[in-house]
Amino acid sequence: MSFSEIPSIADEALAARLQSLIDHKTKPLGSLGRLEPLALRIGLILGSEAPVLRSPQVLVCAADHGLAARGVSAFPSDVTWQMVHNFVTGGAAVSVLARQQALSLTVVDCGVRHDFAPYPGLVVRKVAPGTQDCSSGPAMTAEQCAAAMANGREVVRALPGNALLLGEMGIGNTSAAALLLARLTGADVADCAGRGTGLDDEGLARKIAVLRQALAANPEAREPLQALAALGGFEIATLVGAVLQAAHERRVVVVDGFITSAAVLVAARLAPAVLERCVFAHRSHEPGHARMLAELQAEPLLDLDLRLGEGSGAALAWPLLVSACAILREMASFESAGVAQRS
Amino acid sequence: MSFSEIPSIADEALAARLQSLIDHKTKPLGSLGRLEPLALRIGLILGSEAPVLRSPQVLVCAADHGLAARGVSAFPSDVTWQMVHNFVTGGAAVSVLARQQALSLTVVDCGVRHDFAPYPGLVVRKVAPGTQDCSSGPAMTAEQCAAAMANGREVVRALPGNALLLGEMGIGNTSAAALLLARLTGADVADCAGRGTGLDDEGLARKIAVLRQALAANPEAREPLQALAALGGFEIATLVGAVLQAAHERRVVVVDGFITSAAVLVAARLAPAVLERCVFAHRSHEPGHARMLAELQAEPLLDLDLRLGEGSGAALAWPLLVSACAILREMASFESAGVAQRS
Repeated sequence: MSFSEIPSIADEALAARLQSLIDHKTKPLGSLGRLEPLALRIGLILGSEAPVLRSPQVLVCAADHGLAARGVSAFPSDVTWQMVHNFVTGGAAVSVLARQQALSLTVVDCGVRHDFAPYPGLVVRKVAPGTQDCSSGPAMTAEQCAAAMANGREVVRALPGNALLLGEMGIGNTSAAALLLARLTGADVADCAGRGTGLDDEGLARKIAVLRQALAANPEAREPLQALAALGGFEIATLVGAVLQAAHERRVVVVDGFITSAAVLVAARLAPAVLERCVFAHRSHEPGHARMLAELQAEPLLDLDLRLGEGSGAALAWPLLVSACAILREMASFESAGVAQRS
Repeated sequence: MSFSEIPSIADEALAARLQSLIDHKTKPLGSLGRLEPLALRIGLILGSEAPVLRSPQVLVCAADHGLAARGVSAFPSDVTWQMVHNFVTGGAAVSVLARQQALSLTVVDCGVRHDFAPYPGLVVRKVAPGTQDCSSGPAMTAEQCAAAMANGREVVRALPGNALLLGEMGIGNTSAAALLLARLTGADVADCAGRGTGLDDEGLARKIAVLRQALAANPEAREPLQALAALGGFEIATLVGAVLQAAHERRVVVVDGFITSAAVLVAARLAPAVLERCVFAHRSHEPGHARMLAELQAEPLLDLDLRLGEGSGAALAWPLLVSACAILREMASFESAGVAQRS
């Protein structure tokens, strides 16, 4: 697949038919607020005036980060593999939410520093046991980055359904997301970094200093793929491939928080039309996310101060997508219900 | 039931146990954001560390308003009964959302100017066919208001489950809600009124002028019950009774938008502890709602520019309540999952 195979799905005729359908539902014009453009967007992505979301898939990509050794997280790297285990055994937030909402959950070891026993729902596509420390050179080679992206494409290709909810796990990955945001947009990295899983003031200052070193250590990595390899992580690169594949297949892509948004940012720099397939689930408490969303011109559905990742925000927003489709398919029109229009 | 039968459900020991459970889940402290106090609140209401929401009920109270004859709405009064019909035949937004989320839907004719044929899901508790025009005197007599409140209590008493989602329908009822807000808080009614179902600038100015007449025509109605009778509506009074009964039974009360919040405002003035049982679903696009929520010190879950009413916002927020309970019941702890805590 080349990136040029992701065309725009803009369709003025379908958009007009969808808007007319929405406007003739038995409700004051526009009164379902942000649910209305959401219904329109899903209708456009799925190319239908009566869209049905089928077999939704939560894809949680996990990997370790060499940078974590520099103390950029409040938690030790071992938590990455421990949480992967927690995901597949059903005890994590995303496991609970996926179960509640009948979402399939697939966890991908994209590069975790741990050898997992086989487990249902766990797919091993490990490029290497963690990235290199990007404060002293590139996190990945170009080949490793391409391999991770190919893994993401293959994993999505094998999944059923027409909706993909993005999730991630990786101690240190708010640092990688902040680095990508800073490098690809030119923002000061101090405005892109936050407390992640819970750094204190001193920890945040140390994190920002390390991030400045990482940017300085990779001065040439300015194009999206170079930046992804130099500053990203295996889970982010795998997500970039997953997003491109899902967009290619016209799946609805539900973006979770800061880290999955960083993957979407890279994917959108490679193929801007991927954004037409995206629904942004929530605005994270992590301060860089608001900047990221503004860069992507995205207006997320929820604003609940979430900062967990895993795909938990995407899963929490999911019922709103189901509602938007149900409204479009099942609500009566003024004509069909015999309700008077405005006087 | 007297209002004094609604005691506080504050329970420091239970709250501490719930908070400790939440804090030991496998996630960074506080990282589930506003879902965490939501879980705590539901646990306190249901008096359980493992709360289960059972047989949730959407209660849509409908009635007509004499004030509607003064042109305070963009829609004619006939839309009230037509929408009641649409609710029970399954074509309205709240019908679709209730079906999607397996919520039972009960529609109450509290005072609609129409005689309905019997219909499953429609309960007739009509006090009168619409209120009087409150711009020239009280909307209801004290007896009518008490009858509507008693109806609300009885309807809720007969419903199963431990959660009640509030909804309403009544052409003209944003005017009634604005009047109650202005009278009970002392705010200028111009700051309490909005475009409702879609008034233009001229319509809004006319509405505000009529609202000022209504306040002037009912100068003595200053206490909550007097204000409710003079300025409210049959659906709002029925909802006040419903809220008091649900609070008495320690049901979780899910408040929808501006009009149901007005009912909660009145109920809370009669028995402040009802607020401990309330979850506020969303911040309406109707500008008076933000003021109302501030008055109630309520922080709603969703902010989607909804302005439909019917209980649609409560139904849209409902999955978040289910998620909060599932998180509390089903998520692993650091100990049980063998996940390392912060370093």
